[in-house]
Amino acid sequence: MVRNVYSGKVITLNIDTVQLPNGVTVDLETIRHPGAAAVVPVKDDGTVVLIRQFRHAAGGFIYEIPAGKLAPGEDPLDCAARELEEEVGYRASSFELLSSIFTAPGFADEVIHVYKAIGLTKGRQHLDRDEVLEIVEMPLHQAIARIQDGTIRDGKTIVGLQAVFIRNSA
Amino acid sequence: MVRNVYSGKVITLNIDTVQLPNGVTVDLETIRHPGAAAVVPVKDDGTVVLIRQFRHAAGGFIYEIPAGKLAPGEDPLDCAARELEEEVGYRASSFELLSSIFTAPGFADEVIHVYKAIGLTKGRQHLDRDEVLEIVEMPLHQAIARIQDGTIRDGKTIVGLQAVFIRNSA
Repeated sequence: MVRNVYSGKVITLNIDTVQLPNGVTVDLETIRHPGAAAVVPVKDDGTVVLIRQFRHAAGGFIYEIPAGKLAPGEDPLDCAARELEEEVGYRASSFELLSSIFTAPGFADEVIHVYKAIGLTKGRQHLDRDEVLEIVEMPLHQAIARIQDGTIRDGKTIVGLQAVFIRNSA
Repeated sequence: MVRNVYSGKVITLNIDTVQLPNGVTVDLETIRHPGAAAVVPVKDDGTVVLIRQFRHAAGGFIYEIPAGKLAPGEDPLDCAARELEEEVGYRASSFELLSSIFTAPGFADEVIHVYKAIGLTKGRQHLDRDEVLEIVEMPLHQAIARIQDGTIRDGKTIVGLQAVFIRNSA
């Protein structure tokens, strides 16, 4: 049984009555989210293109990779390419899927498809009115150090940067 | 201005009216969550202890590291130690904080503190009635391969496993 509590612009909140595989029945608060795509833009010299974005829920500006919600029916790769150009003004010649991650499976169904993008050329940045961000470029090894010192704290961003670093080292 | 839509067992949903740093005012659907702790248990031979857990929001069983919500006022390290013993039946002689991550900063304030645990000894597993999981142990390099082939998809789990792998390689 599903009881809808709220349907909004981004998320839907339902209380789902679920029988677990062990036979126990529980009511679970479940957020439905359309999903998203994110992209680690890697320049030919190994520099990665990050953003420092205002996030109300996080209490201020945080480091992230470019990302955005999927439009209805949108291919995640198209979404990644769109957000790459809109948020940081780059186009890419090649995308590689690194991971499709559950961000918070305890209460939400959101999946973010995390790509690596290479072969970057300049396009045109175009921010939405509710996007407040600045572009920050740094060498990949410095981004890894910023994860380790606690400066970079966004989950999808850490997943993407670490994955590129590990694949480069293999 | 904050309008409360729902206050539940795990999450609270508010509609926050926020003035962004660029002067634009927006209504933001914001999930408040108590936060959580998670732990990568690493045995002396490099084996990591994962769980395969039923997650309704994810549509089935997914691979994760042991984790749980913070009790009110609880130190994240105490939470990590508690969940390590309750979910997989191990105690650890030493914990190291790897990252404190925002899981979904576009709509939620949840922070998960991700630790590495070493010096494992057998304790006593004690599952809650709504926890359905089995323990899966594998070498760290195999866990990294399972991330790369898309088998391991949980964000906090990937962050933790990749962080341990990168630190081991440094």
